[in-house]
Amino acid sequence: MEDKIKVVFFDIDDTLYDSSMQTERARKNAIKAMIEAGLDVDEDKALEVLHGMIKKFGSNYQYQFDELLKEFDYDPNPRIIAAGVVAYHTTKVAYLVPFPDTVPMLLRLRDLNYKLGVITDGIAVKQWEKLIRLGVQHFFHFVTISGDTGSEKPDPELFRRAIDKSGCAPGETMMVGDRLDKDVKGANEAGMVTVQVMRGKYREVKPREEIERPDYVVSKLSDILRILG
Amino acid sequence: MEDKIKVVFFDIDDTLYDSSMQTERARKNAIKAMIEAGLDVDEDKALEVLHGMIKKFGSNYQYQFDELLKEFDYDPNPRIIAAGVVAYHTTKVAYLVPFPDTVPMLLRLRDLNYKLGVITDGIAVKQWEKLIRLGVQHFFHFVTISGDTGSEKPDPELFRRAIDKSGCAPGETMMVGDRLDKDVKGANEAGMVTVQVMRGKYREVKPREEIERPDYVVSKLSDILRILG
Repeated sequence: MEDKIKVVFFDIDDTLYDSSMQTERARKNAIKAMIEAGLDVDEDKALEVLHGMIKKFGSNYQYQFDELLKEFDYDPNPRIIAAGVVAYHTTKVAYLVPFPDTVPMLLRLRDLNYKLGVITDGIAVKQWEKLIRLGVQHFFHFVTISGDTGSEKPDPELFRRAIDKSGCAPGETMMVGDRLDKDVKGANEAGMVTVQVMRGKYREVKPREEIERPDYVVSKLSDILRILG
Repeated sequence: MEDKIKVVFFDIDDTLYDSSMQTERARKNAIKAMIEAGLDVDEDKALEVLHGMIKKFGSNYQYQFDELLKEFDYDPNPRIIAAGVVAYHTTKVAYLVPFPDTVPMLLRLRDLNYKLGVITDGIAVKQWEKLIRLGVQHFFHFVTISGDTGSEKPDPELFRRAIDKSGCAPGETMMVGDRLDKDVKGANEAGMVTVQVMRGKYREVKPREEIERPDYVVSKLSDILRILG
């Protein structure tokens, strides 16, 4: 089957860059900066509370630091919040760099005449921001983002849309991602060849059901070249 | 009167840093980036349309680039918008640096035992972000922001609040800002000593009424030292 793959689709977060590390460092630096600006709390405790906020309100909620202050019985304090915001964004941007093998691998795949695509969950403008800051926005022939389409991973509809755009049969397409419950499950259901890349905080998770089992598991992106033959 | 000034208050935008240049460059770079990302329009025409958008929706409206695309009959295009957003924010941060004389002058005033303050219009977190990125957040004893208080320049109420915080009489306080219709007018009404600094895009504007006439006009911040004696 592998020799007729024509399109390789990638997830973005924890596949093209180290999003787990980026997020963790950004949150830690935000807490440190808020403490420096006058928030008198224990750093580890604050980080734990922040994680709770994110679980409750989602990672795109823009008033997480306001909620954090509330949790510690502080009045709204724009100075402390701004310190957190600046540190958070500066760190986010600083860590928005591709894995070392990302760009060489994408170039190699293009040299070999594969078409390249992205299938990702998120707000469309935010995901495009990531591609642009990673410097890979010109590499991809097809970009499909859940925020544009209304269906999210692992809904196979999202993957079918991406396949349709490419004009290929599902079996001629490959999906590369880090999450079994999102990338692999949905892509398997849509009939794609699936590759789990062992990166990010979900790398040790095992398949919970047959549909989450990837066709291939790789530890680095360049291993895809061997699979494609 | 000048020898009893105890507190010097500053506006932020176009007083502590070159906000006019920053905004103009950020908008130009955003348009260039959107054109690079596929927006097929004339650069000058797009800038003109963007200025119209900002006049219509205000400068803190977050969907300016979406509106810009609409104006040119484009469908929503997250890739193009993201290119604009990235270029806009990168440029904004790059130009968020103090005027060369800002920090030396603030240090000198502190050495001379003046208390320092900020009186500014805007969203509190955004204005604190500016102070932090400018690296001057620790210099000020009193920071008053319209977003926190509900009254905006030139409402003398905003200035009175700042004066109250300082514990001084109005005549013992000085307001330094670039805008006659905002900084000078409100501060005059509140009984402060007023200084117009000739910076930014409003520098050539003349007083339209007596209450807009500043006690002093300076071309650079260090001239304040001479006024204080």
